Amino acid sequence: MIKQVLIGTLCGAVVLTAGILIGHYGIKKSSSSPPSWVNDVAKDVDEGFIEMFMSEVDNIQIQENLRELTKVPHMATTAGDEQTVQFMLKRWQDPQTGLDQAWREEYKVYLSFPDPKNPNNVTVVSPTGNVLHIAREKEKSYTSDQNDPEVVQPYAAYSPAGHPKGRLVYANQGKPSDYQLLNQTVDLRGTIAITRYGGAGRGDKAINAAPYGVVGVLVYTDPLDINDGLMSDINETYPHSWYMPPSGVERGSFGADFGDLLTPYLAAKEETYRIRAEDITGIPPIPIQPIGFEDAYILICELGGGAAPSEWQGAFNCTYNFGGPGFKQTSAFHNSDVKLNIHNYEEVKSSSNVMGVIRGSVEPDRYVIYGNHRDSWVHGAIDPSSGTSVMLELTRVLGKMVKQGKWRPRRSIIFGSWGAEEFGLIGSAEYTEQYLAKLSERTVAYINVDIAVFANATLRASGMPSVQNVIFKAAKQVSAPGLDSTSVYDNWIQYSNRTSPTHGTIPKMGYLTGAGSDYAAFVHYLGITSMDISYTYDRSKTNARIYPAYHTAYDTFDYSSKFIDPGFVSHQAIARTVGNILIRLADTLVLPLNCTDYAESLEDYLTVSVNLYQEKLQAKNISMEPLKRAVTSFRSAATHLDKVILTSDLANETPLKIRMINDQLMLLDRAFLDPLAFPDKYAYRHVIWASSSAGKSTFPGLADAYANANSSGLSSDWDKVHYHLSVLSQAIEGAANTLSDVI
Amino acid sequence: MIKQVLIGTLCGAVVLTAGILIGHYGIKKSSSSPPSWVNDVAKDVDEGFIEMFMSEVDNIQIQENLRELTKVPHMATTAGDEQTVQFMLKRWQDPQTGLDQAWREEYKVYLSFPDPKNPNNVTVVSPTGNVLHIAREKEKSYTSDQNDPEVVQPYAAYSPAGHPKGRLVYANQGKPSDYQLLNQTVDLRGTIAITRYGGAGRGDKAINAAPYGVVGVLVYTDPLDINDGLMSDINETYPHSWYMPPSGVERGSFGADFGDLLTPYLAAKEETYRIRAEDITGIPPIPIQPIGFEDAYILICELGGGAAPSEWQGAFNCTYNFGGPGFKQTSAFHNSDVKLNIHNYEEVKSSSNVMGVIRGSVEPDRYVIYGNHRDSWVHGAIDPSSGTSVMLELTRVLGKMVKQGKWRPRRSIIFGSWGAEEFGLIGSAEYTEQYLAKLSERTVAYINVDIAVFANATLRASGMPSVQNVIFKAAKQVSAPGLDSTSVYDNWIQYSNRTSPTHGTIPKMGYLTGAGSDYAAFVHYLGITSMDISYTYDRSKTNARIYPAYHTAYDTFDYSSKFIDPGFVSHQAIARTVGNILIRLADTLVLPLNCTDYAESLEDYLTVSVNLYQEKLQAKNISMEPLKRAVTSFRSAATHLDKVILTSDLANETPLKIRMINDQLMLLDRAFLDPLAFPDKYAYRHVIWASSSAGKSTFPGLADAYANANSSGLSSDWDKVHYHLSVLSQAIEGAANTLSDVI
Repeated sequence: MIKQVLIGTLCGAVVLTAGILIGHYGIKKSSSSPPSWVNDVAKDVDEGFIEMFMSEVDNIQIQENLRELTKVPHMATTAGDEQTVQFMLKRWQDPQTGLDQAWREEYKVYLSFPDPKNPNNVTVVSPTGNVLHIAREKEKSYTSDQNDPEVVQPYAAYSPAGHPKGRLVYANQGKPSDYQLLNQTVDLRGTIAITRYGGAGRGDKAINAAPYGVVGVLVYTDPLDINDGLMSDINETYPHSWYMPPSGVERGSFGADFGDLLTPYLAAKEETYRIRAEDITGIPPIPIQPIGFEDAYILICELGGGAAPSEWQGAFNCTYNFGGPGFKQTSAFHNSDVKLNIHNYEEVKSSSNVMGVIRGSVEPDRYVIYGNHRDSWVHGAIDPSSGTSVMLELTRVLGKMVKQGKWRPRRSIIFGSWGAEEFGLIGSAEYTEQYLAKLSERTVAYINVDIAVFANATLRASGMPSVQNVIFKAAKQVSAPGLDSTSVYDNWIQYSNRTSPTHGTIPKMGYLTGAGSDYAAFVHYLGITSMDISYTYDRSKTNARIYPAYHTAYDTFDYSSKFIDPGFVSHQAIARTVGNILIRLADTLVLPLNCTDYAESLEDYLTVSVNLYQEKLQAKNISMEPLKRAVTSFRSAATHLDKVILTSDLANETPLKIRMINDQLMLLDRAFLDPLAFPDKYAYRHVIWASSSAGKSTFPGLADAYANANSSGLSSDWDKVHYHLSVLSQAIEGAANTLSDVI
Repeated sequence: MIKQVLIGTLCGAVVLTAGILIGHYGIKKSSSSPPSWVNDVAKDVDEGFIEMFMSEVDNIQIQENLRELTKVPHMATTAGDEQTVQFMLKRWQDPQTGLDQAWREEYKVYLSFPDPKNPNNVTVVSPTGNVLHIAREKEKSYTSDQNDPEVVQPYAAYSPAGHPKGRLVYANQGKPSDYQLLNQTVDLRGTIAITRYGGAGRGDKAINAAPYGVVGVLVYTDPLDINDGLMSDINETYPHSWYMPPSGVERGSFGADFGDLLTPYLAAKEETYRIRAEDITGIPPIPIQPIGFEDAYILICELGGGAAPSEWQGAFNCTYNFGGPGFKQTSAFHNSDVKLNIHNYEEVKSSSNVMGVIRGSVEPDRYVIYGNHRDSWVHGAIDPSSGTSVMLELTRVLGKMVKQGKWRPRRSIIFGSWGAEEFGLIGSAEYTEQYLAKLSERTVAYINVDIAVFANATLRASGMPSVQNVIFKAAKQVSAPGLDSTSVYDNWIQYSNRTSPTHGTIPKMGYLTGAGSDYAAFVHYLGITSMDISYTYDRSKTNARIYPAYHTAYDTFDYSSKFIDPGFVSHQAIARTVGNILIRLADTLVLPLNCTDYAESLEDYLTVSVNLYQEKLQAKNISMEPLKRAVTSFRSAATHLDKVILTSDLANETPLKIRMINDQLMLLDRAFLDPLAFPDKYAYRHVIWASSSAGKSTFPGLADAYANANSSGLSSDWDKVHYHLSVLSQAIEGAANTLSDVI
C-alpha cells in the first residue's frame, strides 16, 4: 500500500509536473507574450560598454594614424588629398574594423591656388626700377617635410591676381577703425598696407582697405601675437621649440562666407547653376599676400611717418610707424615702392567628402553626426589630422565592436571626413545643402573635432548650452592626460570656470557663434545642436593666437609629436571624451540634451541686453517686455519638460512617449531658425548663435541692430531694432512652445 | 482493476489539468508579460467606428448650426463676429459634446472698413458739377436679412480713401494686357476705369491701372460671368432663383498677400513690430469701389469710343465701348466725369481664432488640423458658415464619443475657427507664424473646409497628390446626397475625371497653387500636406464664376436652404466625407498618405516642362537632366517606400519603425520648402505648389522664370531659369532622400 501510494504520488507528481510544463510552455497566454522588440526599445546606454570603449582607445594607434595621414601635404583636391580619401575608405571599409558602409561624395567647388610655375612675390622697388628686396617665397626647410615639392607656396586663397605697387603703410590689424585712424595721417590712395593677423577676418583686411584707395595688402604674423614675443634667435623657434620660425607664414582662405562661393545655398554638382565669379561677395577686392615676419620686420622697421599708437606696436625692436606713406628718409628703401606680384588663379575642382555610417538598431532614422575635415594646407599634422587620427581611432574601436556583433547603436552614427574646409568649410556646407531636409529632420547632434589637440593642458568645448551636461558627464569619466587620478573635468575646471546659478562652479564652455570650423553649416544653416571639442593651451603660459605652426609648413608629425602632444596622450583623452559623448548621444534612451541649461544661457543673454539696451529702447518707445516674456516662457517650459523626464518611468512607457520627448529635445535648436532674421549674413539663420560684430555677450541680431541704430541715430535703424526684437521674441516663444506639453 | 485504472486515469487527468492550470496561470513566463501599451501602439483605425460616426452625422443639426451662425452679419471683429466666437466656445466647451479643450487666440490685425457715417459713393458729375447719377450705395432688400443695420456697405477692403474724378473707360478684367490694349486707343491719364470681376486678382485691377495714370477704378460682376447671362427680369434672380440680383455686389479684400499686412512673417501681437502703412505692398495704390451690375449697365452702355473686342463684351444688351474716354455724344452723360467718394479707413483691431483640441492617445505629438474661417462679409451662410456648420457637426459627434469614453484618436486633432479670413486669410496665417516650429514638426495634415457647399452636384477636392488616396477611400464610403445607391466617389467621377497611368480613370483633383482660403499658409509657408474639400456645381448647367450670392448681402440662410442645398444633404455628405478622412488621418497606424501618387504628379509636371522648355533651354546651354534625374530619384524612392509599407508586417514591428515611416510621409512636403526660391512672392516657399502667373500645368518657378526670360531675352533672365532649375532639382532630390532608406 505504501508502495502503491508512493508510486501513485510519484506518478501524480510526474503528471502534475508534466501538466505544469505543458501549461507553462505549451499554451500561449491569452494576452500574447511580449514581442521581441519590447526590451530593445527600452534599452538604455550601457555604461560597461562605454568603459570598454574607453579602455580600447589606444594612443599608439592614433600616433600611427597621424603618421600615415601626414606623410605628404594634402591640400584639398591634390594628389595628397586623394591619398587620404583612399586611406579613409580603406579603413572604413575594413572587414574587421570598418563601418557598415563608407563612400565618397564629390562636389565641384571653386578653389583658388598660387601658380607653381609663377610664384607670387613681394618686392621693394626703387624709383628707378631696381629691386631692393625680395621677400622669401617659401618657408625655410628644417626637416624633409618642408622640402616636399607639394608644399604650397604661402598665399591668400581668393586674393585676386594683380601687380599693385605703391608706398607702404602700416595698418595694424586692418580693422575698419585701423584704416580710419591711419587715413587721418596718411593719404592712403595708391598705397600698399601691411597688416598683422588678428582682430579682423583675413579677407576683411583687404575689404576694409579698398574704400580708402589702398591697392594691395600684406599680412604677417607678429611675434607678439604668436611667439610670446620671441622671434629671431634660432634656438627659440621650431625646430627647437613650438614657436614659429621667422620664415613661417600662415596660409588661409580669405573668403568671408562658408560653402562653395559659386553655388550659394546649392550643392555644387556638375550642372548646378553657378553665379558669375565677379558676383562673389566677401572676398578681397584687391590683391593680398601673407609673408613671414622676417620680411615684415625688414619692411615695418624702415617705415617713415609718425609713430603708430601703442596698441599697434608689435614685438619688433623698432617703432612701428604709420608710413610716410612709404619708407623713412634714412632708409635704403626711401622713395621706394612695395610691389606685389600675385598670380593666383581660380579653378572649379572636384573635392570629396568621405562618409561612413553605423546603422542604428532601434531608431535608424535618428542621426548622430561626427565630423572633421580631411584637407590641410600643408601636412596638417594638427590642423586637421589630429582630429582625423582621433576619428579613425574611434571608428576602429566602434567598428570592431559592430563587426564582432558586440554592439550596435540605438541611433545611426554618420561620420563625415569633409573636403576643402580650408577654402571655406566647403565640404560640410555642400553636404548640408544637398541633404538639408533629411538632416534637419533627423539629426540629434553634430560633434565637430577639427584640431583635436592644440596643446596638452586642458579640455576646451563649445556648443549649444543643451550639450553641456553630456560633455561634463564624459569629461568626468576620462583621466586627464598624464594625470591618472585627475579627470579631464577636474583638470578643465581649474583652467576655465564660471558660476552657474543652477550648478555652482563648473567649467566654462564657449558658444558656436562664428564659422571657425565645419560646425558652421550645422549650427547656423540647419539649427542642429552642435559641439566643438579639443584639447588646448594653458593660457597662463602663452598668449599665442593659436599654436604657432598653424597653416605653415611646420605643422608636421615631427612638430606635433615633439611639441604638441608627446606620447599622444592628449589625443587619447580627446578620443575617449568625444567617443563617450558620441556613444551617449547614440545609445541613451532619453537624449542627454538639457533644455534648462539652454534657459540659463538665454537668461544670461537677456540680463546683458536689458542692462545694455533697455533704457535707451524705452526712450525710443520700444518695449523689451515681449523678449522678457519669451525667455520666461522658455524657462518655464524647459523646467516642466525636465521634470517630466525626471519623474516619469520612461523605460516602462510606450516608446512613442520617449520618442516624443526626444523629438522635443532634438528639434529645440531648429525652432530658433529664421531664414529672414539676418538678411545681410550669408546662411546665418539661428537667431541665438549667429555671428555678431557688436562684441557683446547677448543676442547677436539685437546687439548688431542696436549698435547700428545707436551709431546712425536714424529712426529707420531704430525700427530695425524693434523689428529684430519681434523676430527674436517670436523665435524664443516658438521654441518654448515646442518644449511645452504637446497639446 | 478497471475501476482502479479508471480512478487512476481520472486522478491523473485531474492532476494533469491542475498542473496545466498552475503552469499556465500560476507561473509568470520568464519573459515578463507584455506591457499594457503594446496593443495600443499597434492599433489601427476602426472601420466600425467610422461607420458609426457617419451614421451619427445629422443634416438637421447642420441646418440648425447654420441658422444660429447666420442670425446676424458677422464680419471680422464686429459684435456679430464676437457672437460666433462665443457660440463656438460654448459648443466646444460643452460637457457632453465638447472637445478636450477650447480657447480663443487674439491677434491685433490691420483691417479696412467703409465709414458707416459717410458711405462711399459713385456718381456721374456733369461739367457744371451737377450729379447726374448716383450708384446704389447698398443692396436692395428682399428679406429681413438685408435690412440688418450691420450689413456692411459694399466696398473694396484696403482701397485707399480718396475722391478721384475723371472720364470713364472700360478696361475689361483689368489685366495688364487689358490696360495695355486700352491704352493703345485711349489716353488713360486721369481716367476712371470700370472693370469686371474675373481674370485678375481684385486689387490687381487697380495695381495694373495706376502705371497708366488711371486715377480710380470701379469693379462689378457682369451677368455673363455670374448669372449665365440672366440679369434683369425680377423672376430670374434671387429671391426667385440663386442668381445675383441687379443690385448685388461682391465685397472682398483687395490685398494680394496673405496674413496681417503690418506684420509680415510675425504674429500680430500687441507689441509686435509693425511696418509703416505706406510700406505695405500688394494693395491698391488708387481708390477702387465695387458696384452692382445695374449701375455698371448704366455706365457701360453710355460709353463712347470704339467698340471693345468681342472677348471684352459681357451680357448687357449694348456694345461695350472702350470709352472716348468718357461717355458717347448721344448720352445724357456726355462730357461728364465719374467721381468716386471713398471714405475707407484702416484700423488695427482684435481678431480671434477659436481653437479646440482632442488629445491623441498614442501619438499626442502628431497633429491633424481641421480648419475653416468664421468671419463672413455679411451673413455668410455659404461663405463660410456652410463650413462652420459642418465643422460643428463633426465636433459634436466626435466630442460626444470622447466624452462618453468610446473613442480617443491615436493622434491629436486640432480644430481652428479662423478669424479675419476675408481680409486676407489673416487668422490662419498669424497662427502659423506664431506656432511655426511646433506645427512644422508635428502636423500630419491640414484639412480645409471653407465653403462646404457651393452647390449640390458633386464633390470637389484639391490638395497635395499624397492625399488623393484617403479622399477616394472616404468618398467611396459615403452616399451621394439624394442618391442612396451611388457613392460620392461614383458620382464625382462622372463630373470630373482623368486617366492616371497607375489607377486608370479616377476623379480629377486640383492642386492648391493659390491662396484662395486658409490652406495657403499651411501649404506655402509651412509645407504641410493639405486638402480643400467642398461640394460644388454641375458645370454643364452653369458658367457662374462662383455661386451668385458670393460676398453679397444675399448669402443667407434663406438663400442656402432654398437654392444651394435644400434639406442640407450635401452638407451632410461633406461632413461624412471629411470626417471619414479626418478619422483615418488621426487613427490609421500607417498614415494614409501616398508618395507614389506624388511621384505621378511630378512626372506630369516634368513631361509638360520638357515639352514646353527643353528645346529652347538646350539652345541656351541649360540642361534639364538634373531635373529629370531628380524626378526619377523621387519615383524610385517613393516606389521603394510604398513597397516597404505593403510588404512589412508593421503591426508586429516596433512602433518606432512605423513612426519612422510615418515621419517620412508626414514630412514629405516639408522637404519641398525653400525660403529663397521665390524672392518676389510673399510667404511662398513650396517649390512645387507656389502660385504662378505663367498659366502652365508645371513647376511654377520654372514656368514663371522661363516666361520672363522668353519675353525679355536677357541673358540674366536665362540665368534665373538655370538658377531656379537647380533650386527645384535640389528640392526634389532632397525630398527623394527623405523617402529613401533612412541610412
